[in-house]
Amino acid sequence: MSFTPFQAPLLAPLLGDARAASLFSVRADLDAMLAFEVALARAESSCGVIDPEAASAIERAADVFQPDVAAIGAGVERDGVAIPEFVRQLKLHVGAPHGRHVHYGSTSQDVVDTSLILRLRALIGLYREDLERLIAGLEDLRLRFGATMMPGRTRMQLAVRISAADRITAWLSPLERALERLADFEPRLLVLQFGGPAGNLHVLGERGPKVAEALARELGLGRPEGQWQAQRDRIAEFAAWISLTAGSLGKFGQDIALMAQNEIAEIGLTGGGGSSAMPHKPNPVKAEVLVSLARFEATLLAGMHQSLIHEQERSGAAWTLEWLLLPQMCVGLGAALRLAGNLTGSIERIGPSPERSTS
Amino acid sequence: MSFTPFQAPLLAPLLGDARAASLFSVRADLDAMLAFEVALARAESSCGVIDPEAASAIERAADVFQPDVAAIGAGVERDGVAIPEFVRQLKLHVGAPHGRHVHYGSTSQDVVDTSLILRLRALIGLYREDLERLIAGLEDLRLRFGATMMPGRTRMQLAVRISAADRITAWLSPLERALERLADFEPRLLVLQFGGPAGNLHVLGERGPKVAEALARELGLGRPEGQWQAQRDRIAEFAAWISLTAGSLGKFGQDIALMAQNEIAEIGLTGGGGSSAMPHKPNPVKAEVLVSLARFEATLLAGMHQSLIHEQERSGAAWTLEWLLLPQMCVGLGAALRLAGNLTGSIERIGPSPERSTS
Amino acid sequence: MSFTPFQAPLLAPLLGDARAASLFSVRADLDAMLAFEVALARAESSCGVIDPEAASAIERAADVFQPDVAAIGAGVERDGVAIPEFVRQLKLHVGAPHGRHVHYGSTSQDVVDTSLILRLRALIGLYREDLERLIAGLEDLRLRFGATMMPGRTRMQLAVRISAADRITAWLSPLERALERLADFEPRLLVLQFGGPAGNLHVLGERGPKVAEALARELGLGRPEGQWQAQRDRIAEFAAWISLTAGSLGKFGQDIALMAQNEIAEIGLTGGGGSSAMPHKPNPVKAEVLVSLARFEATLLAGMHQSLIHEQERSGAAWTLEWLLLPQMCVGLGAALRLAGNLTGSIERIGPSPERSTS
Amino acid sequence: MSFTPFQAPLLAPLLGDARAASLFSVRADLDAMLAFEVALARAESSCGVIDPEAASAIERAADVFQPDVAAIGAGVERDGVAIPEFVRQLKLHVGAPHGRHVHYGSTSQDVVDTSLILRLRALIGLYREDLERLIAGLEDLRLRFGATMMPGRTRMQLAVRISAADRITAWLSPLERALERLADFEPRLLVLQFGGPAGNLHVLGERGPKVAEALARELGLGRPEGQWQAQRDRIAEFAAWISLTAGSLGKFGQDIALMAQNEIAEIGLTGGGGSSAMPHKPNPVKAEVLVSLARFEATLLAGMHQSLIHEQERSGAAWTLEWLLLPQMCVGLGAALRLAGNLTGSIERIGPSPERSTS
Repeated sequence: MSFTPFQAPLLAPLLGDARAASLFSVRADLDAMLAFEVALARAESSCGVIDPEAASAIERAADVFQPDVAAIGAGVERDGVAIPEFVRQLKLHVGAPHGRHVHYGSTSQDVVDTSLILRLRALIGLYREDLERLIAGLEDLRLRFGATMMPGRTRMQLAVRISAADRITAWLSPLERALERLADFEPRLLVLQFGGPAGNLHVLGERGPKVAEALARELGLGRPEGQWQAQRDRIAEFAAWISLTAGSLGKFGQDIALMAQNEIAEIGLTGGGGSSAMPHKPNPVKAEVLVSLARFEATLLAGMHQSLIHEQERSGAAWTLEWLLLPQMCVGLGAALRLAGNLTGSIERIGPSPERSTS
Repeated sequence: MSFTPFQAPLLAPLLGDARAASLFSVRADLDAMLAFEVALARAESSCGVIDPEAASAIERAADVFQPDVAAIGAGVERDGVAIPEFVRQLKLHVGAPHGRHVHYGSTSQDVVDTSLILRLRALIGLYREDLERLIAGLEDLRLRFGATMMPGRTRMQLAVRISAADRITAWLSPLERALERLADFEPRLLVLQFGGPAGNLHVLGERGPKVAEALARELGLGRPEGQWQAQRDRIAEFAAWISLTAGSLGKFGQDIALMAQNEIAEIGLTGGGGSSAMPHKPNPVKAEVLVSLARFEATLLAGMHQSLIHEQERSGAAWTLEWLLLPQMCVGLGAALRLAGNLTGSIERIGPSPERSTS
Repeated sequence: MSFTPFQAPLLAPLLGDARAASLFSVRADLDAMLAFEVALARAESSCGVIDPEAASAIERAADVFQPDVAAIGAGVERDGVAIPEFVRQLKLHVGAPHGRHVHYGSTSQDVVDTSLILRLRALIGLYREDLERLIAGLEDLRLRFGATMMPGRTRMQLAVRISAADRITAWLSPLERALERLADFEPRLLVLQFGGPAGNLHVLGERGPKVAEALARELGLGRPEGQWQAQRDRIAEFAAWISLTAGSLGKFGQDIALMAQNEIAEIGLTGGGGSSAMPHKPNPVKAEVLVSLARFEATLLAGMHQSLIHEQERSGAAWTLEWLLLPQMCVGLGAALRLAGNLTGSIERIGPSPERSTS
Repeated sequence: MSFTPFQAPLLAPLLGDARAASLFSVRADLDAMLAFEVALARAESSCGVIDPEAASAIERAADVFQPDVAAIGAGVERDGVAIPEFVRQLKLHVGAPHGRHVHYGSTSQDVVDTSLILRLRALIGLYREDLERLIAGLEDLRLRFGATMMPGRTRMQLAVRISAADRITAWLSPLERALERLADFEPRLLVLQFGGPAGNLHVLGERGPKVAEALARELGLGRPEGQWQAQRDRIAEFAAWISLTAGSLGKFGQDIALMAQNEIAEIGLTGGGGSSAMPHKPNPVKAEVLVSLARFEATLLAGMHQSLIHEQERSGAAWTLEWLLLPQMCVGLGAALRLAGNLTGSIERIGPSPERSTS
């Protein structure tokens, strides 16, 4: 039992997702933070807040900036957040006279939250593709096997007969609604966070709104009316969608595991895992893991909603709680989508086993 | 500590909500179940499945039907669901020759889930009104006190100055988004559940879809492509919205409780609770309870998402878990909205205390 | 779907537990609060804090005290807790000159928490009896069916053969450990809470510890070194035990539901529920509900542990959160133990179905 | 926001714990698995199940075994567990004729669970030391500052005066009970898991119990009556203790953050974090993070209790869910204990600020 199933060498091939995890690596963290600072400099230059030379110098310096990661780690231990030390290093790296314009009028939360949003944008793209592919895979199964009749089962007992299409539709429809929901919340989620030290852009004075506008444009993000550093409903809504989607995949996995029971054998799967004692016993491992991941996401969601209770202009406690939960929720859904895709691809029969019916 | 804070005589005046609770009373349960059966009879009559006389007889009988509640309770103990015994009684009450047409082609889950949706429709109406009123109340506070300057606070420490409007906006904006979200999910949620014993309306044969159409029209509900008895994402999505909205109210409550601290005194409230030992000490009771309710909803949400993992055509275990959680989540948000409204109405000052600033 | 499954007329026969629920009724609440006040008066009289006549007058008056429940409810709405209004009424009822000695030196939390502990003592007695009976029932099953050989199943797949005793032991052993744990935490839990307004018994001065000693003796509770009004680990530990025990029963229920699948049929049950559409289909309703209740308790436990984070000498928010969660957790375990007992009693075969093996 | 706060270079210096994390590294995983296989070989040799030469060969080979980690990862993807591939490699590495005696009579769960228990033993030692040191630190604070009088606070409002000792005791006493509880559950937790493929040691026949006895002795673990592979109450009990203990530390952190508010200033801390915009603003970062970690642990606990519902002899779904949750809970408590120790050491005043009282 390794420490971090999602990226540990032993467990990650099953439980992790390299694509999603890569968006939360140190490198991805630092790149997104840099992207924010560069875009800020460009935006402030375009609004006349800082000199164009300063913006160019910051942009050039950022290109070759190699942050001292250990020192930033030490900064986090002291400050609770990476930005103060990160900005200190970047200013030094840019050097006089332009270094002092780095991060001008901004605050830690602007960088951390906006750089998170930039990565969630990439992640959502990945999720959407996975969902579309998975839906296509299930539609294909429905075409191939949908007409097969099989016993319906309610409360774990035989009920009247259904078609395989009936059951496949129950796996498929929630995923179509997951895409619908994604379209609903995307414009709420993919927005700039920019408020400065207390959220009101006071350092920038009257030019604040214009800079915010330009910064959003630079980053390709929406521009909400104000900052949202203590309004975490956007993030918590996204977490709920993750759990909702993983839960629908968990139902799919649970059904497969039940169908794969030997006496029932209503599904044929290629592959399937072995055991150390009985190497030839096929196990519906991926189906089971879909259940695990669904229960995992549901569990963590509760903490993400606890973190809605942000004190005043910024809560260190509630914000840190998000950091402990959200990234692994993101990777967990990536893993669930990957496994569901594999599992769908491995289905070679739905409905009663021909061996059994001939016996 | 009473058993059911939400409706107990001692605690409900603070923690409950009579409006929301009334939608989950035995009476409301039975009425909604009856409404389903009557609408089903009318729909089946309009599609030529049963005689118009049968539909009329069922409708007339339903008007004066007094179910034997204790016998239904005993039925639930045996069957896990109220409908078999409820339908048995209703058939008997309608009598020959029309009684046998009651519930024709339907199943327990159709009645339970659709009757839930009918009540959620009323509940959502109530929530929407409360949210609109609360938003108006907060906008009014922003007009009255918004220009006052006060210290911003981050990580529980003094930060740069903000206007009271800045803080009030952080309470208000998430509620506006709550209304947006409600509009997003409402058409997904307020839909008919109708599938018959195994979900495929097999008893009704080719007339199934037409009956479903007519039934949805009778009840004023949307008509999804198929049944969703094992697809609980609609319900789980609604539960997430409840928790999200309650969480935003919890942030409001937490802020008020912090502002009401004696040395800080950045808010003036009329009312406030007493203590048995120090009767004149004012306590921000309602603000604290908003925090409690937010944490309560976040907690229960995890269970609602566990219940997404429905086995096969219908899971007794996952469905029953919903029953244990969702109704109280509904009442909890009713209470939170009521308390937030009261609290908003009791605010008579935001910003530094005049007494303190003159001292 | 009624509002409160645990005590609603329709659902409580299945999901509720009258014995546990009765400990959290309004009557039980008020009785336990009165018991505290009477014991306090006796203890203070025995330590010379109040006159013996006052104690006698309070005791006599308490015997016939009929509190105005609606007025206490209104008091809770105002004060966040029932005690101020309850004590006001009781003082008035005792009348001059002794009324003023009611509740002397105490505070709301002393009454609420100690009266909770008094009821948890009764509840634990009930749980212990249920557990012992259930263990005996499972031991009996093991004696009767233990030698039967049946397939072991891992990851939902056939594994090597086991005896029925192997599986029964996996249901039984955790319950034996539940009793062990109960003996471990009982002395930590069943203790007096007594601290007065700020927890240091300052009103009673030097006589504080003696009064506390006498009060604990009066109530038959342990006497911890100090008060624990902001130290909720005792309560949260108990909640974890509830969830742990319910979880073990959930595993039992899950196994039964899996064994009862038609193609597997490794268990014979008398009874079992019907459906509205297929009256003769037997459903393992109680087994499924054990799973529901286990998942319910696990869900609520998270909130009970959130409520450990009590601010300062007393948190209104965290304390109220306990009220919303603990009583229903208590009733939930009562229901699970009741159902597990019924289910055990209904088992008439474990192991392969004779019909199947002869076919 | 990095992927894994507990070990990421940026966040781990604040949120992680290197000591606890090291027990869940790949190296620690593999070492503990090897330790099991070696001890098994020795135990089986001592009971005459395998030749002493085989045991020696296995022990010698294990000393220099370099597993192919990537291949084990691929094995996990296939089998859902590392052991089949790990054992295959180890057998190959031992070579003929003794290789075939590796893992004899055992199964994956024996290795995974026992190797977990071996690491929890080390972890518990670490926790115990941390708790003892922390208790000593708080006792020291109580000696130094306990006599200072300060306002008690209930419901976030001024209440009667208390001594600093009163408040410190509320931080300290739950930690003493945490040690008591640890002594209670330790003998239940630190036990061998050994059951073979279906849990009944059928491969070893009559010698099974003797081998189990010897194996437990080799590993210095307790020997329960049977295996517990589907009885997860031991693990879930430990998880509850983690959350309970972290919750008590969260209350400590919450109090410090409230006391450190500028207008209240009832605590003096050395250090404290900065912000990117206001470098000289001291933030009670560690206190806030204690709150985050407490809420994190409470959240994850719910999932650990969901995993009690193990199907039949072994549930892939429930077991995998443990892997996703328990290791990070372990590291989270390590971090909380470390931070609480640091925070205690940084307290240089409790009680009203001298500056304020002289102004």
